[in-house]
Amino acid sequence: MDINDVNCLKEIADNIRSAVKPLFGTFESKKVLGRGFGGDRTLLIDEVAENSIIRFLKENSISCIFIGEEHGVQKIGEKLTFYLIADAVDGTTNATRGISFVSASLAVSPTNDLGNVEAALVMNLCSGETFEARKDAGAKFQDKEIKTSETLYLKDAVLGVDVSRAPNSVELAAPLIKKARCIRSFGSASLEICHVASGFFDAYVDLRGVLRPLDIAAALLIVKEAEGTVTQPTGAGFNGYLLTEMNRFSVIAAANKTLHREIFSVLR
Amino acid sequence: MDINDVNCLKEIADNIRSAVKPLFGTFESKKVLGRGFGGDRTLLIDEVAENSIIRFLKENSISCIFIGEEHGVQKIGEKLTFYLIADAVDGTTNATRGISFVSASLAVSPTNDLGNVEAALVMNLCSGETFEARKDAGAKFQDKEIKTSETLYLKDAVLGVDVSRAPNSVELAAPLIKKARCIRSFGSASLEICHVASGFFDAYVDLRGVLRPLDIAAALLIVKEAEGTVTQPTGAGFNGYLLTEMNRFSVIAAANKTLHREIFSVLR
Repeated sequence: MDINDVNCLKEIADNIRSAVKPLFGTFESKKVLGRGFGGDRTLLIDEVAENSIIRFLKENSISCIFIGEEHGVQKIGEKLTFYLIADAVDGTTNATRGISFVSASLAVSPTNDLGNVEAALVMNLCSGETFEARKDAGAKFQDKEIKTSETLYLKDAVLGVDVSRAPNSVELAAPLIKKARCIRSFGSASLEICHVASGFFDAYVDLRGVLRPLDIAAALLIVKEAEGTVTQPTGAGFNGYLLTEMNRFSVIAAANKTLHREIFSVLR
Repeated sequence: MDINDVNCLKEIADNIRSAVKPLFGTFESKKVLGRGFGGDRTLLIDEVAENSIIRFLKENSISCIFIGEEHGVQKIGEKLTFYLIADAVDGTTNATRGISFVSASLAVSPTNDLGNVEAALVMNLCSGETFEARKDAGAKFQDKEIKTSETLYLKDAVLGVDVSRAPNSVELAAPLIKKARCIRSFGSASLEICHVASGFFDAYVDLRGVLRPLDIAAALLIVKEAEGTVTQPTGAGFNGYLLTEMNRFSVIAAANKTLHREIFSVLR
C-alpha cells in the first residue's frame, strides 16, 4: 500500500471512524490524558483516533514520517520518503458533545513543507462523507469532481467563520459578518475549508491565528485543487512552512479571486 | 391516526424527508416559486416539503387547522380540534447548498396559542435523527429521554448564535460571543434549540427578532420538557401569541436558570 495514494488515506480514515464512532457524545470520550504535541489537551477520543492511525501504518508496513496532534513527529518503518500529517479528530468539542460535525484530516507530502502536499483527504467522521485531492489532478467529494461556487460578492455569500475562544477576532471579523448573506460556524476548520471547495460555503475565514499545519494541510490542497483562493491575512500563501513545526495560522479561503479580494478589502 | 400523537408527527416528518432528500444541494431545489405566508421567498424545496404534509393529512383523513410557511392557514378535514404548525424545511439555505443541517419542525396545539403546544417533533432531514416531546411527559432524542446540560457558566458553554442577515445583532451578541467557550452557528433555529435540549449545546441565542411561531413552536416545547429555560430577551415567555399570526421573536434558550441569568446579565 502506498501512503501517497488517496485510497490508502481513505482506509486510514475509515479506521479512525470505526475507532471513534462508539465514543461520540460519551462521558468517556472527554477523559483528559495529558497535553499533546499540538498544544491542546489530549482527550481519550483524540488518543484512540491517533493510535488507530499508527496501528494501521504498522500493520500494513507503511513507512513514513508521521506528524500527529498528540504524539508529535514519529518515524514509522524504514523508507522515510513521505510525511503524513494528521489531525485524527478535528472538532473534538463537537465529538465529545455528540454534535454531528467532526472530521479526520490526512495529508501527505514528499518534503517537510506545508506547501508541498500531494495527496489529501478529509472525512466527515459522522457521515463518512469524504473530500479528497491529488496535486494537479483536481478535488473530489464522494468520488465526484468538485469546484468552488461562482458567488462573487459577500452580500450573496454563505461565510464560515470561527471566532471561538478569541475575543479579539470578533472585532476583526465583525465587518465581514455584517456584510455576508449567511454566517455558519461548525467547529471543524478542515471540514469547513472543504465546504468552500465543494461550494457548500462560498468562503471560510478564521482570523484567530490558531490553526496549525495539521489542521489545514489537507484542506488547503483540496480547496486549491477545487479552484479556490486561499491565503493568510497578509496575502501570503503557505509555502515554506515546516510540517513538523507547530506554527499558527489565520486562513482566508474563498471560492474565487473576486470574493477573496472583497474579503480583504472589508478587513482593511 | 391522531395528529396529537408524536408517532403521527414522525410519519409526517418521514414523508417530508423522502420528498426533499433528492433535492438537497441541487440547482432545481432553489427555483423561486413566489413569496410564502411566512414572508420568505418560496423555493421549490419548501413547496415540495409542505405539499407532502398536506397530501399526508388528506390521504390519512386527518383533520386539523394547518399553518404552513408557504400556504398559510388551511382547514383540512371536518373535525378541527387541533392546530398543526409546521416549518417543513427549516434551514432552506443549507438544503439548497447541500449542507447537512436541515430540519422539519412540527407542533400540535389544541388552541391557537404558541404557549399551548402539546406535541412536538423536530427531525434532522439529513440524518433522520429526531427530537420529540409531549407536554408534561419529557423530551426525547432518538427515543431516549434527554435533559439539558449541567453547564452553569458561559466560559464553559457551547453557545449557538445566529446573526445572519442582521448587522445590528452582531453588536448585540458580541459580548456573549466573547465570553462563551465555543460558538456554533448551524443555520436551522429549530434544530439548534433542540441541541440545547439534548445538551449538545448549552445555550442558543437569536437576537434578530425574526423567528416566527412556525420556526420555534416545536423546539420551545422540546427544550422546556428537557428542563431548559427559554424566554424572549424581555424575560417574557411565549404564552398568548397566536399560532396563526406571523409575529417575530428573539429567543434565549439555556440549559438552566443559572446560565440563562448570566446570558441576561451579559446582554444588559
